[in-house]
Amino acid sequence: MPRSVSYDALAGFSRAVLLSAGANTESADAATWAMMHASAHGVDTHGIRLLPWYADCLRSGLAKGHPEIRVEQKRRAAVCVDADGGMGHLAMYRAMDEACALARDCGIGMALVVNSTHFGAAGAYTLAAAQAGFIGMVTANSGAFVVPHGGFKPIHGTSPYSVSAPNPGGEPFLLDMATSSIPWNKVLRYRTEGLELPQGVAVDTSGAFVTDPHQAVALAPAGGKDYGYKGAAIAGVAEVLGGVLTGMRLSREQDGLALADSRMGHFVMAIDPTLLMPLEAFGLRLEDYFDGFKAQPGTYAAGGPEWEHRRRREAEGIPLPDGLHAELKAAAEKAGVDFLA
Amino acid sequence: MPRSVSYDALAGFSRAVLLSAGANTESADAATWAMMHASAHGVDTHGIRLLPWYADCLRSGLAKGHPEIRVEQKRRAAVCVDADGGMGHLAMYRAMDEACALARDCGIGMALVVNSTHFGAAGAYTLAAAQAGFIGMVTANSGAFVVPHGGFKPIHGTSPYSVSAPNPGGEPFLLDMATSSIPWNKVLRYRTEGLELPQGVAVDTSGAFVTDPHQAVALAPAGGKDYGYKGAAIAGVAEVLGGVLTGMRLSREQDGLALADSRMGHFVMAIDPTLLMPLEAFGLRLEDYFDGFKAQPGTYAAGGPEWEHRRRREAEGIPLPDGLHAELKAAAEKAGVDFLA
Repeated sequence: MPRSVSYDALAGFSRAVLLSAGANTESADAATWAMMHASAHGVDTHGIRLLPWYADCLRSGLAKGHPEIRVEQKRRAAVCVDADGGMGHLAMYRAMDEACALARDCGIGMALVVNSTHFGAAGAYTLAAAQAGFIGMVTANSGAFVVPHGGFKPIHGTSPYSVSAPNPGGEPFLLDMATSSIPWNKVLRYRTEGLELPQGVAVDTSGAFVTDPHQAVALAPAGGKDYGYKGAAIAGVAEVLGGVLTGMRLSREQDGLALADSRMGHFVMAIDPTLLMPLEAFGLRLEDYFDGFKAQPGTYAAGGPEWEHRRRREAEGIPLPDGLHAELKAAAEKAGVDFLA
Repeated sequence: MPRSVSYDALAGFSRAVLLSAGANTESADAATWAMMHASAHGVDTHGIRLLPWYADCLRSGLAKGHPEIRVEQKRRAAVCVDADGGMGHLAMYRAMDEACALARDCGIGMALVVNSTHFGAAGAYTLAAAQAGFIGMVTANSGAFVVPHGGFKPIHGTSPYSVSAPNPGGEPFLLDMATSSIPWNKVLRYRTEGLELPQGVAVDTSGAFVTDPHQAVALAPAGGKDYGYKGAAIAGVAEVLGGVLTGMRLSREQDGLALADSRMGHFVMAIDPTLLMPLEAFGLRLEDYFDGFKAQPGTYAAGGPEWEHRRRREAEGIPLPDGLHAELKAAAEKAGVDFLA
């Protein structure tokens, strides 16, 4: 068993590191909420492990610590949220708030986020919508790590797609997925650990599928050898809505090495689920849908594994394996803040 | 080479069969456009092969030939389109028109279609949006043929997800995919032809993956053995937006044997791409994205293979393999209309 830390202790530590690295309170809080969302729900790729890197982004100036977020109404149901080069999290929570307010008024609402940086787990923002009683949707492109189906040169990011839906009587629907099968850091981890990659998830310089992580130079889209065009097409939607519609960078124009960039665009949308029925009725029908999974043990609706993680981690704390523990300790020293007990 | 028929001749034949089966002109035209969209773009599963079946749906009363489509404004950017139990195509074209009109006014617009039936290829409607200068999105659930990831009992349809985006100077972005890897009729065809299915696309009664089409009783979600939870989650979005939000049937409540049902719901959305730039600039950025594919021969942006099909079929006609030819001939006799020369 790796050592574990309580949610509150880890969140407090995260805020302290980000404030020390130059973030204002709003930015530090938003980034902390988003990371803690991921850590609490078992999405460790986007959890507290990103903290040292976010702190570096603040110190290097890649992300502004004191952005002036500006919201401009473009049409009755659409706003543009200018993140002013700050951390993506604050702009994204604000954008989802705006989209929900528009949806309450207009039935559906959209917020286009511009001049942003990395925002962490997309599910943090769609779940915020669901908790406020709205269906939330987020997509965004990201630095190019994924070749097109049958290709050899990355042009898509692992670009996320997330949709959540409210369920007043139980757990919401929560989809938060990458459009590649695996994240790039899984390749890096498998190199370190000397493991073989699954079939159909990574390619070498010629675009051939490989399972040796040392030969892998890029990811394949979700769908693998035969159906990768499906994952690539959903990454294409992220490109169209996150990169083209917002006037921001395409994935292949972003700095893949830094894992993030400035001038990133994000797409945020909310829908009022009460157009045709009360929210309670919507939740009951969602439960009817979930019942189809409950009748088949071992299957999960989108979000199911996340709720199991959250229940366990709320009870037992967030696990910190040795490697992560050492990274956070180093981040504490760099920031000059006390490390977790 | 199978015999080929011109677009116009096939479309005229389709209209005649549907009118004879009881459709009014508007319904016959809309269903014909949608089928011809699919046939022209190489999506033969949803092309003219559906004509005999649609005619049967009209004759049996599953779909009303003379529906009274009603549009009710629910909020500033949201309408409900009641298909009145008619063929889904007419209601869907109308819904996308409404969504585009709302998007012009509000930036984004949504039309929830209720009391509908099978609508054919989702891409027909999103491409209509793109041709009108809007980003279109459609999703819907459908009769349950797909088990959840790791399960044995179908609860999702092959539920489509489609997004198109306009490109005034070239070909639009056009994604139209099923959330399973293959359609069910591929299993049927492989049984007839004695072929083995690909790995990871179909399951037997216990939920185990099989490649023998005679043992296959259901489909697996896109993503296969390891990543099927991704395809299942996108099918879940179709369920939430198409079935729950609209108050219509869940996939597993629909009649899977008939391949369609009444009281189906569909989700239709449009976005004005000119909120932050002129349409021409949007198209140029889309072309920048497409350039990443053009630099890698054999790769395609979403829609790429469809445009190749359309160019060929516009020049050479729509191919009618022997089996399809015989089915259409039988449909002509049943309807009492002249068959294609």
